[in-house]
Amino acid sequence: MLKAEIYITLKRTVSDPQGLTIKHALESLGYKDLTDVRIGKLVIIKLNFKDKKRAEKEINEMCKKLLANPIIEDYHFKIKEQ
Amino acid sequence: MLKAEIYITLKRTVSDPQGLTIKHALESLGYKDLTDVRIGKLVIIKLNFKDKKRAEKEINEMCKKLLANPIIEDYHFKIKEQ
Repeated sequence: MLKAEIYITLKRTVSDPQGLTIKHALESLGYKDLTDVRIGKLVIIKLNFKDKKRAEKEINEMCKKLLANPIIEDYHFKIKEQ
Repeated sequence: MLKAEIYITLKRTVSDPQGLTIKHALESLGYKDLTDVRIGKLVIIKLNFKDKKRAEKEINEMCKKLLANPIIEDYHFKIKEQ
């Protein structure tokens, strides 16, 4: 069994209104020393096989085909044994 | 400058319809060897100071007060120097 953790974030050049809203909310709670807040997605996929190379290839494909939008998002992932 | 990466996931006992939808979509693309797909949030906060202990304390507070819902979500975070 393998577990893939995929981190999907907006590219730096893309504005992130959700992050900005959270930054303002945190500042209004008294946390003034924030320079930036960005929001991303975390996708955790459990795979039913043990071949790490196959997992890397398939997770990469899944990101490109479905999980991430390559025009506005970057992604990276880690694959761990479970 | 410190950078905090906060990972917020639904607790195991909470059902994740968004994850299930993505699982079905991936299966329909031909990826049949998935046992589970769960979706979480990733929050990246850049902090304007260098005191790691203060950062850990404040990020923990932010999670409890605003970022995570402790009834249905778990969180963990990493703090890195930049």
